[in-house]
Amino acid sequence: MKAEKEPIIALLTDFGTEDGYVGALKGRLLSLVPFARLVDVSHRIPPFNVRAGAFCLANAFPYFPAHSIFLVVVDPGVGTNRRGLVLKAGQWWFVGPDNGVFTLVWKDYPGTAFRIREERLAGPVSATFHGRDVFAPLAAKIALGQAEPFLEPTHPPESFWTDPRPLTESSWQVEVLHIDRFGNVIFNLHRSQWEAWGSPQPLKLEVGALLVQGPLATFGQVAEGQCLLNWDSSGYLQLACNRASAAQKLNLKPGQKLKLKQ
Amino acid sequence: MKAEKEPIIALLTDFGTEDGYVGALKGRLLSLVPFARLVDVSHRIPPFNVRAGAFCLANAFPYFPAHSIFLVVVDPGVGTNRRGLVLKAGQWWFVGPDNGVFTLVWKDYPGTAFRIREERLAGPVSATFHGRDVFAPLAAKIALGQAEPFLEPTHPPESFWTDPRPLTESSWQVEVLHIDRFGNVIFNLHRSQWEAWGSPQPLKLEVGALLVQGPLATFGQVAEGQCLLNWDSSGYLQLACNRASAAQKLNLKPGQKLKLKQ
Amino acid sequence: MKAEKEPIIALLTDFGTEDGYVGALKGRLLSLVPFARLVDVSHRIPPFNVRAGAFCLANAFPYFPAHSIFLVVVDPGVGTNRRGLVLKAGQWWFVGPDNGVFTLVWKDYPGTAFRIREERLAGPVSATFHGRDVFAPLAAKIALGQAEPFLEPTHPPESFWTDPRPLTESSWQVEVLHIDRFGNVIFNLHRSQWEAWGSPQPLKLEVGALLVQGPLATFGQVAEGQCLLNWDSSGYLQLACNRASAAQKLNLKPGQKLKLKQ
Repeated sequence: MKAEKEPIIALLTDFGTEDGYVGALKGRLLSLVPFARLVDVSHRIPPFNVRAGAFCLANAFPYFPAHSIFLVVVDPGVGTNRRGLVLKAGQWWFVGPDNGVFTLVWKDYPGTAFRIREERLAGPVSATFHGRDVFAPLAAKIALGQAEPFLEPTHPPESFWTDPRPLTESSWQVEVLHIDRFGNVIFNLHRSQWEAWGSPQPLKLEVGALLVQGPLATFGQVAEGQCLLNWDSSGYLQLACNRASAAQKLNLKPGQKLKLKQ
Repeated sequence: MKAEKEPIIALLTDFGTEDGYVGALKGRLLSLVPFARLVDVSHRIPPFNVRAGAFCLANAFPYFPAHSIFLVVVDPGVGTNRRGLVLKAGQWWFVGPDNGVFTLVWKDYPGTAFRIREERLAGPVSATFHGRDVFAPLAAKIALGQAEPFLEPTHPPESFWTDPRPLTESSWQVEVLHIDRFGNVIFNLHRSQWEAWGSPQPLKLEVGALLVQGPLATFGQVAEGQCLLNWDSSGYLQLACNRASAAQKLNLKPGQKLKLKQ
Repeated sequence: MKAEKEPIIALLTDFGTEDGYVGALKGRLLSLVPFARLVDVSHRIPPFNVRAGAFCLANAFPYFPAHSIFLVVVDPGVGTNRRGLVLKAGQWWFVGPDNGVFTLVWKDYPGTAFRIREERLAGPVSATFHGRDVFAPLAAKIALGQAEPFLEPTHPPESFWTDPRPLTESSWQVEVLHIDRFGNVIFNLHRSQWEAWGSPQPLKLEVGALLVQGPLATFGQVAEGQCLLNWDSSGYLQLACNRASAAQKLNLKPGQKLKLKQ
């Protein structure tokens, strides 16, 4: 743990940008680490939507430089006794609540998890704004190479991940993990897993009486309104419709289980 | 007035982010102060909503480092003869129109107010974009330590603040200052004033036949849909409902006066 | 082509800010150019709206410092064989797809156009995310002064611009180029062209039986709901209504041709 000259602190929250909360975070970070380079990833995660936060983070973090610090505040449980976490995973740091928002980070880069010893932080901690009063100060400590006294090794972070369940040699049960804002339906199958299976092709997803095929390279390969399977930009299996909401069209919701076959 | 090495200029506007207006501001600032560190506080203040701008600013500015410069452009009066202002308040600088947007800054940090001598600025001033043509250049001058020739001491900024009015020893008339985008209703009573009164508890707010109680620490202390009093993240008395709009539910509007009692 | 110490890379996309796509862009840029100064111009261009992107860019780029690099990703044709472009125009660099988004840059600052030799870029190029895999790496190469091997001189960029057509000595046919999000209607007449005509005044625009007059300095010069002609903040002729949508009120659409007369 050593300090970077101009540490990158990337911000991902569900605060929206109409209020001063993002400003309060940034002000506090700059007060504690005057040479921090703050990078907005998103402040428009749908409120309290931990999975949307997890997928947004998964789309972005792999492209950041080593030692970047991700301050992630999508925190429906603020004020309850959910843990505050710091993860050292891959070549990056992550700070935020332990509610599943780090699921996709940890799946690909299991590393070291630390509980935050909040009681050692100076200053008052508001019941409702841990982003400003706990997570931002911790991110600052990491940036300054001074976090160790505030961290205690702990068990791995919470995860909403489940692996696809093999049904036969060439069929699997997959689960809807998330619906994105375009109505794309994202499943618990990563391209790397599919490649480990030998890249079976074509894949067919049973949605009621419908069979949706793929994986295809671009939406343009099907007619407008038609559905297809492809890999989303993080490599997860996605059911999408060309210029339409797949989730609405096919009435799908997170948690539903479907059959995928070769 | 001396220049910082990498001055922080924090931006707060009602421009939205769909157009190039924010970009024009940033471009001009970076042209004038190549080493400025621009920080987005918000560009999504509801158009022309001076009070929303004031509360957003109040949430953010106290956390910023000393010498930070706040460029605040929520300016329904652009093109009229409202004054352009620079404030040195607390350890920060503020630049923007004199329309009440600095009310909450000045209440807590009364300092020195300056009128902007626009006639001394070089370059054309558009009738509709003082943010780019007056306020940004002034913020740049402050950042460079060169603002003095453009400033003239003036009377304090406009304010929409009124103190709560004592009715008896243990009751006060309070006024709705602002409804935020969640429908939370914010009153003209700051926690510090309440503490000066001896922290009377519980507080009860009369809304028609209803008595709303508090101050409570978190929304979770009442059932879903129920209302409570608490302190907002800047310390103002707030009437909120757990997962509902208090303003809609109780039909409240800015300017309304209510009775608060112990 | 030489490297700046802390090059400015300004970002303009239609990605929205709910997902991680902007974060992926920024992460990649910072990985390639650790000292880049990233500036958000807009990420909320209406999806695939090339003209909205062009006008947003036109509002912003002229105010940026020399050598700033604009990374513009409004790219309905990603995955087709539309060209990737780099422009050196005026004192700035522009990187993005050749689909008309640089129309207004090129009109005022015709410079040098280069095709991007994508085949020379290292690393996989996703079919759907050229912003991250082609345009961001090119912007980084420019920032580092290493772009030359990836560029090949080419013909000028696509343009949606047409000049106003003279009908008589004192009347012209003008065309609706764009409707902005407020319903303002923007025409293919720039103030500089009008000045070259000798600044004829007043201008009257025939919209069916209605004559709209201008150019006026501010909206406030007409009653609420009334329409006027003025110059938008980039200097294009604009038909606007005071606190109303001119496009809706007068039923105008891009591509429509109208008569303007003195």
